[in-house]
Amino acid sequence: MSSAPAFKPFNLALIQLGQVGTDKDENLRHAREMISRAVTGGSDAHPRPDLVVLPECFNSLYGHLHFPVYAETIGFTPDKPYDIASSESQTVKMLSAAAKEEGVWLLGGSIPERDAGTGKLYNTATVYSPQGELVATHRKVHLFDIDIPGKIKFKASHLFESETLSAGNTLNYFDTGKWHEFARIGLGICYDVRFPELAMTAARQGSCCQVLIYPSAFNTTTGPLHWELLQRARAVDNQVFFSMCSPARDLKQSYHAWGHSMVVDPMGTVIAEAGDEEAIVFAQIDPKVLQDARAGIPVTTQRRFDVYPDVSKRVL
Amino acid sequence: MSSAPAFKPFNLALIQLGQVGTDKDENLRHAREMISRAVTGGSDAHPRPDLVVLPECFNSLYGHLHFPVYAETIGFTPDKPYDIASSESQTVKMLSAAAKEEGVWLLGGSIPERDAGTGKLYNTATVYSPQGELVATHRKVHLFDIDIPGKIKFKASHLFESETLSAGNTLNYFDTGKWHEFARIGLGICYDVRFPELAMTAARQGSCCQVLIYPSAFNTTTGPLHWELLQRARAVDNQVFFSMCSPARDLKQSYHAWGHSMVVDPMGTVIAEAGDEEAIVFAQIDPKVLQDARAGIPVTTQRRFDVYPDVSKRVL
Repeated sequence: MSSAPAFKPFNLALIQLGQVGTDKDENLRHAREMISRAVTGGSDAHPRPDLVVLPECFNSLYGHLHFPVYAETIGFTPDKPYDIASSESQTVKMLSAAAKEEGVWLLGGSIPERDAGTGKLYNTATVYSPQGELVATHRKVHLFDIDIPGKIKFKASHLFESETLSAGNTLNYFDTGKWHEFARIGLGICYDVRFPELAMTAARQGSCCQVLIYPSAFNTTTGPLHWELLQRARAVDNQVFFSMCSPARDLKQSYHAWGHSMVVDPMGTVIAEAGDEEAIVFAQIDPKVLQDARAGIPVTTQRRFDVYPDVSKRVL
Repeated sequence: MSSAPAFKPFNLALIQLGQVGTDKDENLRHAREMISRAVTGGSDAHPRPDLVVLPECFNSLYGHLHFPVYAETIGFTPDKPYDIASSESQTVKMLSAAAKEEGVWLLGGSIPERDAGTGKLYNTATVYSPQGELVATHRKVHLFDIDIPGKIKFKASHLFESETLSAGNTLNYFDTGKWHEFARIGLGICYDVRFPELAMTAARQGSCCQVLIYPSAFNTTTGPLHWELLQRARAVDNQVFFSMCSPARDLKQSYHAWGHSMVVDPMGTVIAEAGDEEAIVFAQIDPKVLQDARAGIPVTTQRRFDVYPDVSKRVL
């Protein structure tokens, strides 16, 4: 990167979306309604958000049997303008229109994506500018294939992601443009959080993201164990803001999301958190907290790359 | 490494040492007494430990003005037998004798070390077999130079380590030998915990440590913020046991240690913890917890070294 990205105060809203069911049209309608509520609703206590975030897999039921049914072709190529009008993706069109109509940055959670060339499926996040442009995508790099004996067995169930999904091969971030430039934001999806290299690479020289946001869907086994711990660890180790946005818990569905959508500051303090029901979480992102953390505990300048390699050397 | 190290159940005791003052002889006498108490004292609830651990800087007051006064020449060279009888270090001789007399593995905290060749000072941990052999050392790789405005200002005070100390350049572990082989144990000291690469390298292929132990001395500012978080993060990210052993808090001295010596299992559960007073913390290390963690959440086999580099490639 030629220069460090700008970092200015901004307001973040996480939509802990509920009511995700079998009907995609209905899922999209409700998500659109909640985007509007996040932007224009809220109380005086919450300033209008500059960036709104949806959770992982927000337009379909979660599970590898569902991914092929709900998958859409997006066809995004980094560094090439994307033509929304000719997009084959119903969800991309809705999200683009929502961002434009509301005049807000939108990290549109993730959806099952079918690659037009290979036919492979991915768990893919998409990001939209307030002009409705699709500016970035992230295909989940680490697929969720886990098996805690006696607790959850994904391999044997319909939830084992790699049964139908392929893994992404790139690390991704987006800049919030020129008209109201406030941050460089690194992307990941859910299980990616267990692999520290993604956050380390995103936060360091070469990328310099100040905020990392992962649309996610931990469950009621892994959630109480590690949901907060992993976000606080990524935030403190890299001295960045870290946030995961979850669906609301829905005991009528087979996958019980943990909820607790959260924003953590660079000192590891949880500055906003939802319960397990549908909610919108608001947080004010203050660059001073990052600056003070890095000045007070200057790990960002004390790393010993003469003793161990720098994982960020293969830049984003 | 030619083959993975053995990992069998063993018992760990952390000495949260109190009464560290200006008199080195008295500090060593009290440490020796506590080693004996850790091995032979305790209650029926605590089996005899196989490994006893002392905290950071246990033979001297903590602070850069003190390091040159208390420093001892050790003269250890990895892979060469060390002659205890001709050692110039009073502390090494005491620790070696203690390990031999008690028949126990001993991670002898850390002490200020003066390199005989260069005259440079280091913050150095030493490890002894039950035969009294000095088998490994670790010189603190990341020096504690921090400055939290309004809270603690180490740079301006007598506590800024790099004023008198040099930093180590190597990562280190030890194996618990053949007669009662139970684990490979990775070493670090205190501030090293803020740099994830040390633990990542120690835990991965090439080293395969199952347990990481850092003699430490967080303070009453950084302790409540990050002491537990960082240990749980290192444990979960690497699926290893992680432990830090602190001095007791002594409000009569200028440096107020956090205490709370702790052992965390590979799922991130705190399995033993002291308060802030002098205490001995006992923990049973059960390899099954590590095996179950790695089988249930198989991050150790799912890392994407095709997408990002492996920091452990430069092996210990």
